[in-house]
Amino acid sequence: MAGIDPGVMDLKMVVSLSRRGEVEPFHAMDILAEANRLKATGVPVVSMAVGQPSDPAPVGVREAAANALKLGRIGYTDALGLADLRKAIAGHYGDHYGIDIPPGRIAVTTGSSAAFNLAFLAMFDPGDRVAIAAPGYPAYRNIMAALGIEIVEIELGSDAYLHAEHLKTAHAEKPLKGVLFASPANPTGAVIPADELAALVRTAEELGIAVISDEIYHRLAYAAPDTTALAYGSGVTVINSFSKYYCMTGWRIGWMVLPEELVRPVERIAQSLYISPPELSQIAAIEAFKATQELEAVKARYAWNRELLMKRLPELGFPLAAPMDGAFYAFCDVTRHTNDSMAFARKMLAEAHVAATPGRDFDPLAGHRTMRFSYAGSHDDMVEAMARIERWLK
Amino acid sequence: MAGIDPGVMDLKMVVSLSRRGEVEPFHAMDILAEANRLKATGVPVVSMAVGQPSDPAPVGVREAAANALKLGRIGYTDALGLADLRKAIAGHYGDHYGIDIPPGRIAVTTGSSAAFNLAFLAMFDPGDRVAIAAPGYPAYRNIMAALGIEIVEIELGSDAYLHAEHLKTAHAEKPLKGVLFASPANPTGAVIPADELAALVRTAEELGIAVISDEIYHRLAYAAPDTTALAYGSGVTVINSFSKYYCMTGWRIGWMVLPEELVRPVERIAQSLYISPPELSQIAAIEAFKATQELEAVKARYAWNRELLMKRLPELGFPLAAPMDGAFYAFCDVTRHTNDSMAFARKMLAEAHVAATPGRDFDPLAGHRTMRFSYAGSHDDMVEAMARIERWLK
Repeated sequence: MAGIDPGVMDLKMVVSLSRRGEVEPFHAMDILAEANRLKATGVPVVSMAVGQPSDPAPVGVREAAANALKLGRIGYTDALGLADLRKAIAGHYGDHYGIDIPPGRIAVTTGSSAAFNLAFLAMFDPGDRVAIAAPGYPAYRNIMAALGIEIVEIELGSDAYLHAEHLKTAHAEKPLKGVLFASPANPTGAVIPADELAALVRTAEELGIAVISDEIYHRLAYAAPDTTALAYGSGVTVINSFSKYYCMTGWRIGWMVLPEELVRPVERIAQSLYISPPELSQIAAIEAFKATQELEAVKARYAWNRELLMKRLPELGFPLAAPMDGAFYAFCDVTRHTNDSMAFARKMLAEAHVAATPGRDFDPLAGHRTMRFSYAGSHDDMVEAMARIERWLK
Repeated sequence: MAGIDPGVMDLKMVVSLSRRGEVEPFHAMDILAEANRLKATGVPVVSMAVGQPSDPAPVGVREAAANALKLGRIGYTDALGLADLRKAIAGHYGDHYGIDIPPGRIAVTTGSSAAFNLAFLAMFDPGDRVAIAAPGYPAYRNIMAALGIEIVEIELGSDAYLHAEHLKTAHAEKPLKGVLFASPANPTGAVIPADELAALVRTAEELGIAVISDEIYHRLAYAAPDTTALAYGSGVTVINSFSKYYCMTGWRIGWMVLPEELVRPVERIAQSLYISPPELSQIAAIEAFKATQELEAVKARYAWNRELLMKRLPELGFPLAAPMDGAFYAFCDVTRHTNDSMAFARKMLAEAHVAATPGRDFDPLAGHRTMRFSYAGSHDDMVEAMARIERWLK
């Protein structure tokens, strides 16, 4: 074509590829991409692969966004977010947990994704040892790997959560700089009981280990009320998001609660790495805390889906590999059907048109034996998915 | 309050602070935060600090977003972006540059901010030497520092752009792994002439230096037509965004054009670090390329502002430190007024209520002698800002 330089084709191609770029793919995202390709060709895929509510954001959230679009420019905000949103989030800690958090300790982030990256950059240097649980959210491992952090994976027991004893053992082997855990957890749905959470946080702080608590699945537990790690440790960093309970995945909006000392480092890094979170999502998210009635109805549907899957998945030969206490995931043992969950997931997508996530994402060692089914979709989709899997397995 | 554990206060506080978190602040963002604080108290600040168009996104862009809000869920997309947006961006290379780029080489990103982070992670390992120009966009330096990349700052001459000779000299001293440059440039507005750009890219590829071309200010040059580095090198990575010409800063949406070999590494890292760019912004951005008439009217206003500042700033004792050929910045020598541009900027904001950016952001060595004025605002604001500065200096 016109503008291209004829000399270009003669030159050797210079492409630089880093070693740290060789992180594992997030297989759930690959499955999503494959599911999207199939859907685009007219195949009616039921997706249980991605942890994503099928409901739109609450009405008030969408109305706020629509109004902002009419009013004018959607621009940069302060790197730590709009003052009104920081205030609303701080207020949520009073309302929901009875904990007093000043808005100045809230950092609004571009999803929890940005929050993890910012926390890791602000807290840890290359070579620092940070403990995470296996199975666990793959982005923890992949972001840490890209940032040169030494990952200490702690294999969990059958209760599927991290205990203070795990931490003591790992720390005794070689000192840890930090620990990151989630409750309710992805992929298992396991919830750390309040007394165990208190012991975990206190043990970490006694040992001088910095705590990051991923609370993105809060408000999505089906038995016990939420407990935040902030209640048990003064130096804790909490990460949360509007993606899950608040049904705002694609809005890319989350937050951190930071100890005072980390606010300015996180702000400085965020200024260069993110400039600011998307303003429209920030304006809209202010309304999310007012939508509890609407969102509790959505949660009631998850509870209904959960009842269905707790019964049907084991019947289909997928026994639960962890308690389904929270989030919207069933984490299953698939060894009755396969010893290669990745190939199995691809085959199930291609043949049964049901997308689920191979365990490899969450556990590089034992993940070939597990799969995660997200039940954040509609109840009809869950019923249909179970029927398809049943037909397909026959 | 109720939920807090009484034992918390007795514990020592464990906060982990990394060395790499000690990056410089992005002073323009600090000035923005300070300007926002002043505005909130009713002070009518004129902001020339942040490179941000005062116009809203084009009508078609906002309509597309409003429609998507009505239709339902705003969700995750493929990590590399919506197929339709990748296609629209690829099409832009045919329309605007006459270059044929397959959509598969486009990665949609959460602003150019994400594109830089992804490029650096996918291309460079800790300790790799990467050349940038001084003065230059501070986030280059700050992100690279956070990622352990060795930054080689090349001080520019009075034409304010990087020449092939600069690259040869720096590479001869100690081999470079990569080079990153922008044309039109931030903060200077300098444009690399087409023949010099060709020589620069060819020299880099001959020396085995990977090229990243920041083309975020394309379509905002006032004399010469745009030339993309893609026309001169087969391994070039281009970074661009909808923020500047397309008036979509707060939407946080940009893109990369990648050599084939980098597509999958960037996708893998993006899956974990970003999940996906904001979907609403992606849907809306598809319309941006159709809004040329509207956007050229905005550009005509920049040209009008530019004429004003080219005359008024030198009259006020701020001679231009670089040619104002593109972007929407005047980069001025402030030594007639101060030897500390940071203190001067803070004083000017507090007393004249005009925000501009101290040169320190762009050049740690010589930045105390310079300041950047953004003229992306309204013409009335520019006139008012010049009048305020004149009164204040007297």
